[in-house]
Formats: sequence, C-alpha cells, structure tokens
Amino acid sequence: MSLRYGIIGTGAIGGYYGGKLANNGNDVHFLFHSDFEFILNNGLQIDSVDGSFHLSNVNAYNSTRKMPSCDVVFVCLKSINNRLLKEMLPPIIHNNTLVVLIQNGIGLEADLQKDFPDLSIAAGLAFICSGKVGKGHIDHQCYGRLTIAPFSKIDMNVIDHVIADLKAYGVDALTADYATARWKKAVWNVPFNGLTVVLNTMTDKLLENPATEQLIRDIMLEVIHAANAVGVEQTIGESFADAMIASTRVMKPYSPSMKLDFDFHRPLEIYYIYSRPIEEALKVGVDMPKVSMLEKELKFIEDLYL
Amino acid sequence: MSLRYGIIGTGAIGGYYGGKLANNGNDVHFLFHSDFEFILNNGLQIDSVDGSFHLSNVNAYNSTRKMPSCDVVFVCLKSINNRLLKEMLPPIIHNNTLVVLIQNGIGLEADLQKDFPDLSIAAGLAFICSGKVGKGHIDHQCYGRLTIAPFSKIDMNVIDHVIADLKAYGVDALTADYATARWKKAVWNVPFNGLTVVLNTMTDKLLENPATEQLIRDIMLEVIHAANAVGVEQTIGESFADAMIASTRVMKPYSPSMKLDFDFHRPLEIYYIYSRPIEEALKVGVDMPKVSMLEKELKFIEDLYL
Repeated sequence: MSLRYGIIGTGAIGGYYGGKLANNGNDVHFLFHSDFEFILNNGLQIDSVDGSFHLSNVNAYNSTRKMPSCDVVFVCLKSINNRLLKEMLPPIIHNNTLVVLIQNGIGLEADLQKDFPDLSIAAGLAFICSGKVGKGHIDHQCYGRLTIAPFSKIDMNVIDHVIADLKAYGVDALTADYATARWKKAVWNVPFNGLTVVLNTMTDKLLENPATEQLIRDIMLEVIHAANAVGVEQTIGESFADAMIASTRVMKPYSPSMKLDFDFHRPLEIYYIYSRPIEEALKVGVDMPKVSMLEKELKFIEDLYL
Repeated sequence: MSLRYGIIGTGAIGGYYGGKLANNGNDVHFLFHSDFEFILNNGLQIDSVDGSFHLSNVNAYNSTRKMPSCDVVFVCLKSINNRLLKEMLPPIIHNNTLVVLIQNGIGLEADLQKDFPDLSIAAGLAFICSGKVGKGHIDHQCYGRLTIAPFSKIDMNVIDHVIADLKAYGVDALTADYATARWKKAVWNVPFNGLTVVLNTMTDKLLENPATEQLIRDIMLEVIHAANAVGVEQTIGESFADAMIASTRVMKPYSPSMKLDFDFHRPLEIYYIYSRPIEEALKVGVDMPKVSMLEKELKFIEDLYL
C-alpha cells in the first residue's frame, strides 16, 4: 500500500519535501496560493545541494476542496495562517489521516487538536536551510533532516512509512519524542529568528561578534531551562546550546525564516515562536526575560515597519 | 566673590548651561574641539524655549593648557573620552576646584577620583532636551533642570553658589544625594537611549506601542531594583518608573543622546550607561537580564555600523 500525500503550502519547506517525494514516484498533491497559475504552466524547480530537479507535471491545486483525500498531510503554512486549517483540512482528511505540522513554534499541535479532537497529529521539525527564491523555485542550501514527532496517539506504522518514503530518496528522516523535539527546535529558532530581524543581520555576523554570541547562548539557555521546567521526555542539557551554535557556525551566512519574512514585508510568526513559549513557561513559574524582550522588540518592528 | 567657570566640551549640555551663565555676566571659559575656529568668528547661538540668545564674545579655547584656573569645571564630554581628563584637568584646577561631571552613566565620579584623590567631584544630572544642531548652534527644546550631587566630601557653599548662579538666570538647579540622583537618571537613560538605537526610533513611538511601553517599564524596574540593591540614600519606589514614563509621554518626540550619536556615526556611551551599572549590580548579586541584552545588542550595532 502506498501513501497519498497532500502538501498544504508549497514554499521552501513543502516544496522541498513534497517535491522530493513526488520526484521519487510518490502520489503527491500540492496546494499553492499565489504561484498556482505559474506552476500549471512552468512546473516546480528544486535547486538542491543534494541534486537539483524539475517537476513538469505537478498535481497542483488552489483549494483543498479540489484535492483528493490524503493519507498524510504536510502543513507547511506560516503559523499565522493556522486559523485557516479548520476550513482547509476537512476536504482532504479521512479517519486515519496523519497531519504533520512542519512549522516553527510551541503549541501548534495542541491548538489544532482542539478543533480536530480525533485527528492524528505530529510535529514536523525541519533542520534545513531552504528558501523560496522565486515563483515555483525552491533553493535548498544545506542540511535537510526532517524529524516527525507524534503528538496524538498515532499508529507508528504510518510514521515509519513516511520516514521510509523520505529515506528512499535520500532525505534524512527520523522520529523523536514530541516535546523534546519541539523545544529543541525552539532553542535554535528563538534566538536566531528574532535577533536577525532586530539587528537586521544574518547568522554568521551574530556569531562573529562576542557580545551577540553570548546573547544567543543566554537566550538558548533560557529556552532550555523553560523546556525542562515545562516537561520534556528527555532533559535538555546546557551543552545543547553549544552544539547548536557550533552547527550554525559551519553553515553559510543564513537568514532564518523570520528574517526573510521581514525582508519581504510579510507578517512575523511572533505568537508561536515567542509569545506561546513564554506563556507555557510562565504557567510553570518560569520567566524568560530575554525571550520576552525579544518578543516585544519584534512586536514593535512588526507594527511599525510591516 | 564670584566663581570662574570652565566648560569642558561645549555641546548640547555645556553650551546650554555655560552659555546661560556667560550671558548673565558670569566669568565662563569654554573648551571647544571641532567648532573652535567657527566660534572665534561667529560666536555661540543658543536657541531655547526659555528665550534664545547669541554670545558674540566667547572665551573660547582649543586646549585646557591655554585656559585660566577655574573654581568650577563642568565636564560635558562624551564619557568615552573621560580617559583624557587625566591630562585635561590639571591646567585648570586649583586646590578647591569643584568638578561637576554632567554626563550619563554610573561610576564616572569614582573613576575620576582614582586619578585625582583630593579633587572635589560632583555629579551633574541634566534633565533637559537639548541638542547641538550645527556648528556653534545649540537647540534647547524642553525642560532644563540641573541637579548637582556631591560625590566627594565637598564644601556645600560652593555648590550652593553654583546653584544660585544658575537660578539667577532662570535655570532650575538644585542639589541631591549622589547615588540616588545617579541611579534615578539611569532609570530613564537605560531604556530610552538603547531602545531608540536598537529599534531606530524616537521616544514617542516606543511609548505608543504597548509592547515597547511594557518593555521600557520592565527595564526601568530592573534598574530600580539594582539601584536599591547597590545602595542609594533613599529607596527608589517602583512608581518612579510610571513618573518617568508620564513625563516622557508629554515631551515632543525625542532622540536621546545615544540615538543622536548613532545617527551621526559617533561612538556610543555603552560602558558607563550599560556595562558599568551591570557590573555594579552583579557585585551585589543582582542580575539585569534585559539591560544586559540591550548592552549586547548595542555592542553589535556599534561594531557593525559605526
């Protein structure tokens, strides 16, 4: 039995993972927004360090109401649009559909589960440098690992199947504990997304300067302490901050997704990346002063400049 | 007996207070840097909400070695230049000279006292909106109070005399306890100087946005708690933050001195406004996480853009 995939939001992330699956012969159906007409005429181009390719015949849609029912749905929207999922998901899910939220932040799965109490939901954590550089044009620069972490009670066979489909085309895919995976991702996302926006810079410059390198480490430690207080399956050690800094240092200069959103005058994902983790930590009595400061600086920037 | 005044650094602050004293007939001697030649030819123009005036015959100098010995010296340099005082002060001080550091920050007087153990030193706290808008041209927009707070053991008669000289021309002048005065000034300086630079904005925009208004209050509270821990003569209540925010709200949109320094590509006074208060607070076990974050953001900006 093969799985039918639906990709909700075909940008840097959905375009890359969905494109890889489609190019390897899987049955993949893509939802597009502004690029829909372009894709019908031109297909989808994936430039990748692991090998570039072009998809000529894309199963492209501009509404989920026109899409078939899918076994696995990758949600790759900006999280500010997640309120739309209540309307978008029903046409493409069946009783056993697995929905993977490949998005940044904390609390995404819990919020979706409120609207769909019986839905099988997993977190998707993409450790990837990938960007949408033009209409129907994805540029994958480095890394690519996708971690799929079950949030609901899920048939692990489905997750194993998805991982096998990804691995069959060379994508590094694996599963992990949910809370640990989400918070570990936040350890990187929280400092780098916000500081590249506030200081209008890229990852390399932040790590070259001793003051901001220390600040990044301080912020990472706030997130790690909050994570361990909120409750993760495996305690995250402080050395994880060093590991994240080391792996960022060997990357090419990089603009995280929030910096790209800022550069292109798009709304910033402040709620799920900042406000929600702050709320969750406060519920267990943990203050994150520097993360809170970054949240407020970002709110100012979003209100004034976007 | 009348006092002879020396003004070291004739900019927005030194030009205003020194100019007021000179225009009222006091014996005032001004040290200039880049404006020296201009002043000789054109004099000094003070535009002020309290009445504008022009000084045609200014006792202007380009080196303290050419200046007479003074009874009172107002130091109005940027604090990043304070290392120069060791050379600049000796020619113009006598056994009883009072040196008033009208500068922003914490620890300025203690550092100067190390180089001049017997010198009478006071802090000068200017609550004033004033800027240097061109060569020999000062623009005073609002407020104007000068608080003179004795740091060393000082003959209070001299301070009273200075206050009387200032009041004689309508300048609101008074004395106060040293540590309380310095830290109260820091309550305003720390949030507004740094955040207007980091967020490239002015005081009014920061207070219009609920997120940054809260952040300013949070930072003020960090400074207040540090001040009370370090030890001030009078405990500073949290309501002082509200008072500072209220008085800023009724000001015209304002660029604090550090924002002007940034705009004109001048070095930022990070050490005495940020690093030193952080150090003093840490000595008594108090962390200022948001102030520390602001310090690091400013160091990044200074290194990258100035």
